[in-house]
Amino acid sequence: MNEPIKADFDIESGSYADAALGFRNHWYPALLSDEIAEDQLVPLVMLGENILFKRIDGKVFAVRDHCLHRGFKFSAKPECYTKNTITCWLHAFTYNFKNGELIAIPSAPNSPLIGQRRLHSYPCEEHNGMVFAFVGDLAPPPPLFDDVPPGFLDKSWTVVGAVNVTCACNWRVAADSGFDPNHVFIHKEDGLMDSLQRSFPLAQRFQGGNPFHSIEERIGPGPKGIVDQLGKAEPIFEFTFECDGEVGHMQSKYPPDEMAMRGFKSIQGSMWLPCALKVEPWPILDMAHYEWYVPIDERNHRYFIAWGKQTDSDESRAAFILEAKTKWRDIGFENFNRTDVIANNACQESIEGVRYGRNQVLCESDGCTMAWRRFASKHNRGVQVRQ
Amino acid sequence: MNEPIKADFDIESGSYADAALGFRNHWYPALLSDEIAEDQLVPLVMLGENILFKRIDGKVFAVRDHCLHRGFKFSAKPECYTKNTITCWLHAFTYNFKNGELIAIPSAPNSPLIGQRRLHSYPCEEHNGMVFAFVGDLAPPPPLFDDVPPGFLDKSWTVVGAVNVTCACNWRVAADSGFDPNHVFIHKEDGLMDSLQRSFPLAQRFQGGNPFHSIEERIGPGPKGIVDQLGKAEPIFEFTFECDGEVGHMQSKYPPDEMAMRGFKSIQGSMWLPCALKVEPWPILDMAHYEWYVPIDERNHRYFIAWGKQTDSDESRAAFILEAKTKWRDIGFENFNRTDVIANNACQESIEGVRYGRNQVLCESDGCTMAWRRFASKHNRGVQVRQ
Amino acid sequence: MNEPIKADFDIESGSYADAALGFRNHWYPALLSDEIAEDQLVPLVMLGENILFKRIDGKVFAVRDHCLHRGFKFSAKPECYTKNTITCWLHAFTYNFKNGELIAIPSAPNSPLIGQRRLHSYPCEEHNGMVFAFVGDLAPPPPLFDDVPPGFLDKSWTVVGAVNVTCACNWRVAADSGFDPNHVFIHKEDGLMDSLQRSFPLAQRFQGGNPFHSIEERIGPGPKGIVDQLGKAEPIFEFTFECDGEVGHMQSKYPPDEMAMRGFKSIQGSMWLPCALKVEPWPILDMAHYEWYVPIDERNHRYFIAWGKQTDSDESRAAFILEAKTKWRDIGFENFNRTDVIANNACQESIEGVRYGRNQVLCESDGCTMAWRRFASKHNRGVQVRQ
Repeated sequence: MNEPIKADFDIESGSYADAALGFRNHWYPALLSDEIAEDQLVPLVMLGENILFKRIDGKVFAVRDHCLHRGFKFSAKPECYTKNTITCWLHAFTYNFKNGELIAIPSAPNSPLIGQRRLHSYPCEEHNGMVFAFVGDLAPPPPLFDDVPPGFLDKSWTVVGAVNVTCACNWRVAADSGFDPNHVFIHKEDGLMDSLQRSFPLAQRFQGGNPFHSIEERIGPGPKGIVDQLGKAEPIFEFTFECDGEVGHMQSKYPPDEMAMRGFKSIQGSMWLPCALKVEPWPILDMAHYEWYVPIDERNHRYFIAWGKQTDSDESRAAFILEAKTKWRDIGFENFNRTDVIANNACQESIEGVRYGRNQVLCESDGCTMAWRRFASKHNRGVQVRQ
Repeated sequence: MNEPIKADFDIESGSYADAALGFRNHWYPALLSDEIAEDQLVPLVMLGENILFKRIDGKVFAVRDHCLHRGFKFSAKPECYTKNTITCWLHAFTYNFKNGELIAIPSAPNSPLIGQRRLHSYPCEEHNGMVFAFVGDLAPPPPLFDDVPPGFLDKSWTVVGAVNVTCACNWRVAADSGFDPNHVFIHKEDGLMDSLQRSFPLAQRFQGGNPFHSIEERIGPGPKGIVDQLGKAEPIFEFTFECDGEVGHMQSKYPPDEMAMRGFKSIQGSMWLPCALKVEPWPILDMAHYEWYVPIDERNHRYFIAWGKQTDSDESRAAFILEAKTKWRDIGFENFNRTDVIANNACQESIEGVRYGRNQVLCESDGCTMAWRRFASKHNRGVQVRQ
Repeated sequence: MNEPIKADFDIESGSYADAALGFRNHWYPALLSDEIAEDQLVPLVMLGENILFKRIDGKVFAVRDHCLHRGFKFSAKPECYTKNTITCWLHAFTYNFKNGELIAIPSAPNSPLIGQRRLHSYPCEEHNGMVFAFVGDLAPPPPLFDDVPPGFLDKSWTVVGAVNVTCACNWRVAADSGFDPNHVFIHKEDGLMDSLQRSFPLAQRFQGGNPFHSIEERIGPGPKGIVDQLGKAEPIFEFTFECDGEVGHMQSKYPPDEMAMRGFKSIQGSMWLPCALKVEPWPILDMAHYEWYVPIDERNHRYFIAWGKQTDSDESRAAFILEAKTKWRDIGFENFNRTDVIANNACQESIEGVRYGRNQVLCESDGCTMAWRRFASKHNRGVQVRQ
């Protein structure tokens, strides 16, 4: 048999297959804003690095969670003698939290190390209820704007981070699946459809079979990503097959009406470096959905969701922020994207011990996945390796 | 000092030392028949492979538990739209369970993959209350008859699988010990002896010291195995040693009477590829005992026991089946072979991180073990490696 | 910037960086005397080796906990038919516990292995309530006297082992920290100071900055070790720094009085091969403190403490032994050195996966650590590797 698609994929797989720890020199969501209060220290692992966050006078800063001297992890027993500093429990090496500079050693007050050595300091920015950190070496870092999906920083919209959950699988499993319009099959019994009385397809079929070569690329300036062709796809609500004389039948829970069909035709998915998906409109017509798959280590990632809506007043803005964190967190995450978490975690075993993608047989309907892997391989700023 | 025996062993160790996952292209017990009901799906690991079993219209079939497309493990969330098929939860790739053929992709109904690609399908056969699966590539597989001990499929006997337990050690530890007539020492306090008021030796001594070169080989046609010389051995019921002026004394719980001695002289042990032991007569004069050590992975195996007896009517046949699963499971397994499980599991630590057998010093009474290792190395159909 | 000190360290790091399992051919504490009663078997792991101890007629002996025949760990189900012997549960191979000699095989009573093969036997000595074992191949071993700190075996003192706890970090983390006069910072809130109403410094400053080149070496005959220059150091009880306009202030709980200062000037720390620290006077003026960091495996060690005092009668001797095991165990260990255990265990993560010391930036006040690493690398009798 011929395998033109898999061959295609193999040629293009490139650095994505090596990026178990994600792509270096990019901005990533680290926390939701309300997960770090003034003066609070929060230790996290991102892309395999131990990072310690602190909010000082309202602004979040981050340094490597590892004292230069003996390697003690500050967060194991943190001491702060001023709001701007972190002191190592072992020998009182004291650093400026805002830039990582070593500023004092009580046992060696005149050491030439003071003022010369510094902890790695991670640039941070905070927008839309989310704290972002830049993991890499570029100084200054590129603008955050280049590393978030279009519209996310748009002032005319209210966008709000509402979900941060840790998932037990590599970030690429989630990224591949999130941008794959055919993973809809796992959602066929989700509560979201009942809540919205919405029909939902079992699959999407593309004109001509494979959308791979016609997927639209955006290579900047600004965010880099790819946009799917879902509007050209045919949603499938019913499917029948035959095997050894028996007939199998799959059917969506709610059959589509004309309005639902128009809705499906208008949805556009897009995938942005380093690891963000945008779906719009979603979960309802006047909203946008953003999600990120942030590498923790080779086997875990953090899953963030933000929702956006155009608002025209401080009141409507405040109301939507509350709605996102309650109603949409319940309907959109607990009764829909939670299923993605379950499905993705169940795939982790299958990728252990093999080069990513190697034991898969992609087909005509995997054009989006193939395009994302190729695009990410080509346009990332570097593959993260264990530091 | 001279070490002729260890040298002998080293020369012959061959592929047995590499077979941490067992031998490929052989039949193995997978389940007891009553562990898989009509329509039931049972996922197992055998020889390091994930395999999914299903009983369809009474007959058991098995396929690789790994969707070709993205590698999802079907058993993590199995969907069956007909009794003959398995559908992947992720994208509804649907396969014929009986032969593994990919028969439908809802999102790509015309994909050339359909009808061309297939899951690995494992031939299955069911006899004597046990389901056997062939793990390998030979098509068609050799007859099951070649891979079970002689007599197991004999219609004039009633043979019934009665025990299936998972043990936390490599299968070779159990195989070496099961066929070793001197491991009897561990059984000296087992309940079986009390139940049967039977004497049981502490050790077996062979004429001339080492039975290695006189062990009988059966190389087919039919099952391949080796037969011990237990009839020529002298069972030892009492043993005394001296150390630094103190005398140590070991004694069997029940001293042997003449009938018991005749019984011991009649017992014959034999070991068959890929991993089965037969002991006859055992545990009493008119019965036969079969056991298998089926590799799960490098550190675990499944231990099966079947017992057989000649029966002359449907009633006596049914009575023996019940007796095996109750009385003999209790006396023969829980009060005897359970001790083997404990002893074998305790040996796992000693084989970690060294080539199998390398840190052992065999002696004159290890002829059976040496012969089995050599025979298995020479006559197996291939060493299993991680697929 | 210049890094003269780190460069120095790198040149000298030598075998210490390879000694994850400690140094071979040295004596180590194995147990406190009251942890092994007459006839009791105690299995331990030391330097990665499985060792089985037994007290026979009052004296402790030790053999490798691994039967030569099949590698069974005796301690998994030990059998002793006489007080002097150990018999393997599997095939009754029987050994003289006092020298490891194989003395009987019931199934092969005439085997040439008998009397020729032996288990590795570990020389043991017992002093001051502690059992020491020699881990290595030298026969005869060097005297225990050469491997304990000076004074430990002095008959005019009463010295008593009082603490044996297992710690979850490599022994070198504990050794480096124990001999480092600047790790005092972790003790600033310990209960010992409250109990003794004692002032305790936050740091120690050395004249000229770095004491590295002036540390005194003792290279034998007798124990080999190095002696710190603490008497020349200036204890620091208060420290102030400034960062971005804010002032940070650290202060000892109890300010020093003149007598305390004289006390500090008299304390001398010294570090002895293979892994022992001596501090004198400590914890009070007329006592001496000894501690050992005994490798278990790459990630764990056993921490022993003994305290000593000059006594002039059997009564005062008995009283001090009781006092050490009650009062000093509580004040000196639970309310002081327990903090070292917490700090050291928290450092284990930082040394995983890198050559020991490689990801550290030592400074002027690390002279003691540097000197110990260099000294140990030069004077040890061999680096232990997995046997």
